[in-house]
Amino acid sequence: MADSAAGNTQGGAPDPDFTHLDNSGRAHMVDVTPKEPTHRRAVVRARVQTTAETAAAIADGSMGKGDVLAVARVAGIQAAKRTSELIPLCHPLMISAARVNFSLGHTWIDVEAEVETVERTGVEMEALVALQVALATIYDMCKAVDRGMTMTELRVLEKRGGKSGDWHLA
Amino acid sequence: MADSAAGNTQGGAPDPDFTHLDNSGRAHMVDVTPKEPTHRRAVVRARVQTTAETAAAIADGSMGKGDVLAVARVAGIQAAKRTSELIPLCHPLMISAARVNFSLGHTWIDVEAEVETVERTGVEMEALVALQVALATIYDMCKAVDRGMTMTELRVLEKRGGKSGDWHLA
Amino acid sequence: MADSAAGNTQGGAPDPDFTHLDNSGRAHMVDVTPKEPTHRRAVVRARVQTTAETAAAIADGSMGKGDVLAVARVAGIQAAKRTSELIPLCHPLMISAARVNFSLGHTWIDVEAEVETVERTGVEMEALVALQVALATIYDMCKAVDRGMTMTELRVLEKRGGKSGDWHLA
Amino acid sequence: MADSAAGNTQGGAPDPDFTHLDNSGRAHMVDVTPKEPTHRRAVVRARVQTTAETAAAIADGSMGKGDVLAVARVAGIQAAKRTSELIPLCHPLMISAARVNFSLGHTWIDVEAEVETVERTGVEMEALVALQVALATIYDMCKAVDRGMTMTELRVLEKRGGKSGDWHLA
Amino acid sequence: MADSAAGNTQGGAPDPDFTHLDNSGRAHMVDVTPKEPTHRRAVVRARVQTTAETAAAIADGSMGKGDVLAVARVAGIQAAKRTSELIPLCHPLMISAARVNFSLGHTWIDVEAEVETVERTGVEMEALVALQVALATIYDMCKAVDRGMTMTELRVLEKRGGKSGDWHLA
Amino acid sequence: MADSAAGNTQGGAPDPDFTHLDNSGRAHMVDVTPKEPTHRRAVVRARVQTTAETAAAIADGSMGKGDVLAVARVAGIQAAKRTSELIPLCHPLMISAARVNFSLGHTWIDVEAEVETVERTGVEMEALVALQVALATIYDMCKAVDRGMTMTELRVLEKRGGKSGDWHLA
Repeated sequence: MADSAAGNTQGGAPDPDFTHLDNSGRAHMVDVTPKEPTHRRAVVRARVQTTAETAAAIADGSMGKGDVLAVARVAGIQAAKRTSELIPLCHPLMISAARVNFSLGHTWIDVEAEVETVERTGVEMEALVALQVALATIYDMCKAVDRGMTMTELRVLEKRGGKSGDWHLA
Repeated sequence: MADSAAGNTQGGAPDPDFTHLDNSGRAHMVDVTPKEPTHRRAVVRARVQTTAETAAAIADGSMGKGDVLAVARVAGIQAAKRTSELIPLCHPLMISAARVNFSLGHTWIDVEAEVETVERTGVEMEALVALQVALATIYDMCKAVDRGMTMTELRVLEKRGGKSGDWHLA
Repeated sequence: MADSAAGNTQGGAPDPDFTHLDNSGRAHMVDVTPKEPTHRRAVVRARVQTTAETAAAIADGSMGKGDVLAVARVAGIQAAKRTSELIPLCHPLMISAARVNFSLGHTWIDVEAEVETVERTGVEMEALVALQVALATIYDMCKAVDRGMTMTELRVLEKRGGKSGDWHLA
Repeated sequence: MADSAAGNTQGGAPDPDFTHLDNSGRAHMVDVTPKEPTHRRAVVRARVQTTAETAAAIADGSMGKGDVLAVARVAGIQAAKRTSELIPLCHPLMISAARVNFSLGHTWIDVEAEVETVERTGVEMEALVALQVALATIYDMCKAVDRGMTMTELRVLEKRGGKSGDWHLA
Repeated sequence: MADSAAGNTQGGAPDPDFTHLDNSGRAHMVDVTPKEPTHRRAVVRARVQTTAETAAAIADGSMGKGDVLAVARVAGIQAAKRTSELIPLCHPLMISAARVNFSLGHTWIDVEAEVETVERTGVEMEALVALQVALATIYDMCKAVDRGMTMTELRVLEKRGGKSGDWHLA
Repeated sequence: MADSAAGNTQGGAPDPDFTHLDNSGRAHMVDVTPKEPTHRRAVVRARVQTTAETAAAIADGSMGKGDVLAVARVAGIQAAKRTSELIPLCHPLMISAARVNFSLGHTWIDVEAEVETVERTGVEMEALVALQVALATIYDMCKAVDRGMTMTELRVLEKRGGKSGDWHLA
């Protein structure tokens, strides 16, 4: 049954590039039924810019007690598992590996997330959600001292597997 | 370990037709371990009866702005993914496609949901939950002007795949 | 910041009756910040039409073992608590009471859900979601023997409290 | 990208036995990508110690009305499906069977949970979560009359399948 | 509407002590609408018995890297917030504080959880769920080396606030 | 009960600025029990950089069909309601209003999220999660044609209410 109503045609030329929109622009979950499960992997990265005091405090903490980054890492991994609940047209899938790591600078923290699976669709979104929630957790744990923290340069670095093949950020 | 207690036998004749109840009437998730994953599909449909004013407003909206049906469609698709959280004895499964569509009449909206998967169990429940949440979302978005809206004729139209084979509503 | 773009104005006459749509038809959660929490209550009802054999089996079960309706009741109560996760523009709220009850006929089951709260918004949606999930659970537990079951006449019977006052189905 | 910072090396000898901690002690989800899905099964058990009055009331209820144990059983089965949301480094998986059963004594209730799957990882955690939530539900439903109830001896009785093979509690 | 059907009366004497069961033994969420929000607090505790090697490894980890207990602490706090999703008849509530702490012995770990709120119902269940999920997380992270770990003596130590007043384990 | 063990003191100077870490660096949910509920508001913003083709296609879509931004808007609003499930030490709270809006440029989309509540804690995290999920949804819906999209400049613009008072990005 397609949407229909007298005087309610939403037609027009199909837009095959926007795979989440069918020919009439209606949102739907792309049909991956015919695809075979294959090994997929995605890596994403971003930076949080902080004051020097915040970065130093996180670094001290991550050495002596480690909690800011430890909590952010756990939060990111847990969020990756719930990606399809958050992103409306994302297929549910069972991730088989997840890692979140950090690199500390004088006024920044770089965060990288990597997710793998053996499924019919890729895991860019799972890695991106892990990254975002790790970033937000850092913000939450430090906002009392540094409300101006800025998250920047969130992007997919590489994705492997699937019909569209491997891809790396140029 | 079966339920047991002095004077607490809950026995009696088994009831093999109620596959979610074991021989003593205790709820459990049916064992699908021995089944092979196969392609499954289900289609369900229902009608929301509205005032003519509500139907016209939704139709206008779905043409000019489209939001009532657009939000209901997204809500239905998202809910399909969470079916096993809502229906206690439903197996979790990974849906591979989901669509929710609408047909507008003068005093009604027909809603149809279709779900596919390649799993050990069928997707009637996923399609039914998508349908119900799309209906409820329409109600939510229009209730300020039409509290008497009635949802009716929710039923499974067809299901395909699985050991019990294909089935269509007579 | 309103949506804007050169050549992308989505303007037009406001539609004040559709309280989930702002003046340009964009979905948003209605602002209830200025409202005071008050006692709210909603009652909803629906019927599942079954074969005589299914109704008899459920009735026997609900007497001797009770599980179909017991599981449906628990499922409905649990779902009521998660309404705002399912219905996109629904406000989260803390329900203070929830009941799901059944009336068995020869070829039908009537299901009624009632929810109460002391909050800034009403609980029609919570009661409706409880009802829908109880209905779907009945379907799930009986579908192996009666795939043609039809859910019908889902409607709000009454709602109490709030600025719009009490309302009963005519 | 490994965690790094001037003066922030968290190195040291690897600890290969703690499979959730990588060589530097950082939490991550173990990579099960290379594993093949196989049949897995786990059984867990525990006891709730109650007053004689509570045990008798539950037993009467489970015979005449059955609700305490019926609700606890449904709660346990539902929780098993959400294990990976609760246990941070647990892989998501699709359980293919779940059972929760009870044995009633004069001052105790024994609870046993059994879960099966065909996946890349085992289901001890799913069975353990089902058990814990069934226990907590019993506590919740009886706490008004017996706040001193104690849950004890929660343990895995056996697990089958997977590379590490079968295991039974000695 | 009470459950009813010809020949389906589930009557009998009311059981006022089991506050989650109404007079006919049907599960429902207790009505707390008339209660006033007040400050509530609950403390729960349990022990995990381990091998000496496991306890030593956790202790080393919690000193040098701390991850087993850090992850278990975060998991427990997060689970406390989702208690009403897991325990069917538990009211949703907004917790205002949550803590999970550990005491390490030579062959055991003691885990204590404390939760506070200002609501219409108590937080024993929230504290108990936090405790259980912290325990399960410890099991999950150590099970590869110590599958025989046993969780024992889970009990409520004290609860404060509410109509039933303060209570301490004797 | 504080964490303790022979030879396992994790002491050191308290770090009062990091309000999510207690004096020994252990994660816990800050106690907001003594705070009074007050009106809170937060606004956050970010930019997605796209190719000119992607921006044009979204703009066309948002005019003719509107789905990319409509789905992202719904996803952001829904995610705001689940913030405390994602951010480990975030208090649960009931948001009373949520809006997500977009501004389209030739090679970018600006996204702004605004959340309000009457609670004991602020809503920066709810607004930030809404923003992140809206951004991720845009990425998901356009990634097939523009995998290099970059999300940048995620920051809190202003927050109002609470003991720490109003704050605006300098």
